[in-house]
Amino acid sequence: MKTNTVNLGPPPPSVNPPPLITLTTDFGLADPYVGVMKGVILSRCPSARLVDLTHHVPPQDVLVARLALEDAHPFFPAGTLHVAVVDPGVGTARAVLWARTAAARFLAPDNGLLSFLEPAQILELRRVENPALTLHPVSRTFHGRDVFAPVAGYLAGGLDAADLGPVTGELLRLPLPRPVAAAGHLHGEILAFDHFGNALTNLRELDLPRTACKVRVAGATLPLVGTYAEVPPGAPLALLGSSGRLEISVRGGNARQVLALQRGDPVEFRIS
Amino acid sequence: MKTNTVNLGPPPPSVNPPPLITLTTDFGLADPYVGVMKGVILSRCPSARLVDLTHHVPPQDVLVARLALEDAHPFFPAGTLHVAVVDPGVGTARAVLWARTAAARFLAPDNGLLSFLEPAQILELRRVENPALTLHPVSRTFHGRDVFAPVAGYLAGGLDAADLGPVTGELLRLPLPRPVAAAGHLHGEILAFDHFGNALTNLRELDLPRTACKVRVAGATLPLVGTYAEVPPGAPLALLGSSGRLEISVRGGNARQVLALQRGDPVEFRIS
Amino acid sequence: MKTNTVNLGPPPPSVNPPPLITLTTDFGLADPYVGVMKGVILSRCPSARLVDLTHHVPPQDVLVARLALEDAHPFFPAGTLHVAVVDPGVGTARAVLWARTAAARFLAPDNGLLSFLEPAQILELRRVENPALTLHPVSRTFHGRDVFAPVAGYLAGGLDAADLGPVTGELLRLPLPRPVAAAGHLHGEILAFDHFGNALTNLRELDLPRTACKVRVAGATLPLVGTYAEVPPGAPLALLGSSGRLEISVRGGNARQVLALQRGDPVEFRIS
Repeated sequence: MKTNTVNLGPPPPSVNPPPLITLTTDFGLADPYVGVMKGVILSRCPSARLVDLTHHVPPQDVLVARLALEDAHPFFPAGTLHVAVVDPGVGTARAVLWARTAAARFLAPDNGLLSFLEPAQILELRRVENPALTLHPVSRTFHGRDVFAPVAGYLAGGLDAADLGPVTGELLRLPLPRPVAAAGHLHGEILAFDHFGNALTNLRELDLPRTACKVRVAGATLPLVGTYAEVPPGAPLALLGSSGRLEISVRGGNARQVLALQRGDPVEFRIS
Repeated sequence: MKTNTVNLGPPPPSVNPPPLITLTTDFGLADPYVGVMKGVILSRCPSARLVDLTHHVPPQDVLVARLALEDAHPFFPAGTLHVAVVDPGVGTARAVLWARTAAARFLAPDNGLLSFLEPAQILELRRVENPALTLHPVSRTFHGRDVFAPVAGYLAGGLDAADLGPVTGELLRLPLPRPVAAAGHLHGEILAFDHFGNALTNLRELDLPRTACKVRVAGATLPLVGTYAEVPPGAPLALLGSSGRLEISVRGGNARQVLALQRGDPVEFRIS
Repeated sequence: MKTNTVNLGPPPPSVNPPPLITLTTDFGLADPYVGVMKGVILSRCPSARLVDLTHHVPPQDVLVARLALEDAHPFFPAGTLHVAVVDPGVGTARAVLWARTAAARFLAPDNGLLSFLEPAQILELRRVENPALTLHPVSRTFHGRDVFAPVAGYLAGGLDAADLGPVTGELLRLPLPRPVAAAGHLHGEILAFDHFGNALTNLRELDLPRTACKVRVAGATLPLVGTYAEVPPGAPLALLGSSGRLEISVRGGNARQVLALQRGDPVEFRIS
């Protein structure tokens, strides 16, 4: 045992590491829609690796999908193609975008899903307009199958990005609500909830002072702790979650239910 | 950028494209049943690619599983093996069938799941009876693990279909209710619902006249539109869905709930 | 057709069968947590095969996760790495264990998840303590991403187990309630339910006499049958389920609901 001294080195060079694609949709898993997308991708790139980020985005909830993409993509190998199809504008003239950063590639409708990409991060941004890349005919309701999946498959198979369509500088940004600072307070709000009933807020680690403090939400005052075990079972708490966001939780319980929290509820960070 | 002129050519020939298997069951994802099937398959064919079509078929609902298979399989690479285990007759004498068409292979209990295969499409149909291909003992309640998974694994690993069992000409067909035409009307019905609450009907694109028309369902008269955006948010509509079936929807909403729709509800297509 | 005589032989030797990892968590699929774990694993071992056992373990329900692991792992290829992250003690000093048996490897918090491993089965047991193997910093709430996933990825990539941490002999065991035998009776209880509403009990095939008998549960007396079809639709029954456990079911129905069953309910096996 050589704790701390083992030299892992880089992962063994995979001669041809298979192209990796993640999928994020609001299609759910009850219908074969996601499976069909995978069939279309694999028809174009049989070696593609497919990972589901989530298909349980609430229907047409661009904000939740954006948070999933934003928080998850840094944990994938560089160059991974992240495909997001939460698309209230399907069948309208909204554009389809492909973006490349140093860390990843993204394919998504231009509806705010990629708002988290800072302009300086984007190395290349294109509108996907090449009709040779889609299924024919393109249905008006299932571009996941008819547009996003075949384009993703061709990209994974080595398509030159220049064949997607023209370079653009436009990307729709739906900014998150910004925290507001006041004397001794920082006002934020609840953005979304996870499976455990934890509330994700727009207060981020970098915004928060390191001094002792309390958090007020839904009429309750919660301690800011480092780990669940600092409060008794069943007690509410605030902590910096794994995504770097301030989260409202209940130890061993469901904060959304226990505290009757709703999206948009104000969260007040009191610097004591 | 060479829109419309790029020559994609065929996908690069994968020297050994891994065998592709899809899975459709009513097992849900709460239990390890689906994972266990995958373990059994991969024990026999470590290189198999596995794609979930859906595991949320309502328990024992052969019709819903058949629609999933019928609508999804054309989008997979030719030769894909589609395994469906929705099997109310597990433990009885119902046969297990393997079918080959020009587009795909299928492995399913003989209970109507493969009703959508026209006799002329079926190039080869066999009863799977070779006990050397199953786990031992075969449980009476989990043939997904003990029969379908090992057989799928051996097939993916290159088993000669002749080793499955004898050729047969019999396949149980559970026909969908057929639309009925009357003067100026076409009467259909609701077959199933998807995750978004859209109702799938038995009226197909090919059956419908191209003239302007209205659709009546559940006491409401809906416009037949080409895309959701043609009606205001919250309004009901009918459109030809991505599977080629007439669907009843609500823009940005759940038609099943909003219109209180039920399976079997009549749908009247009025030719104006 | 050569029923019973076909010589399947061993599966064709895959020159480099890809390393296989299963995942069992209580993270659900609504959030990208599971996808993020996969990104971290694939960042370290791009060739790893990933199979989900289940991510719908009830929050922090170690018993249900343990049953899933115990029942599922024998159906995977020898050497498969089974990673389980149901971890009420995340952020506390609970150990992380890696265990090797003849059949499999396991990576899990030391909280009873691996209770089913008999001491004689365990060929090697280590505490995972090497900080060079984790993400940095390690969050206090998401060790699935920060500890289990990277360690699994390195193991799949060929890490020597000796680099994980020291050999240990300690493993927390949370024994299942044992059946109690009395004159002509065997008393057990309901451990958990599956997706179909079947109740899993702690009475195992090996414990049960082969004579005719009745099963009493929740005030009802049920026949012990070999297959669902032995009772009429809607009737309750007991049978030896696919995992070798006595199960309480309703033919074509949901026993949990129909019989109002709860975890811990006594089940009496009467030897007639």
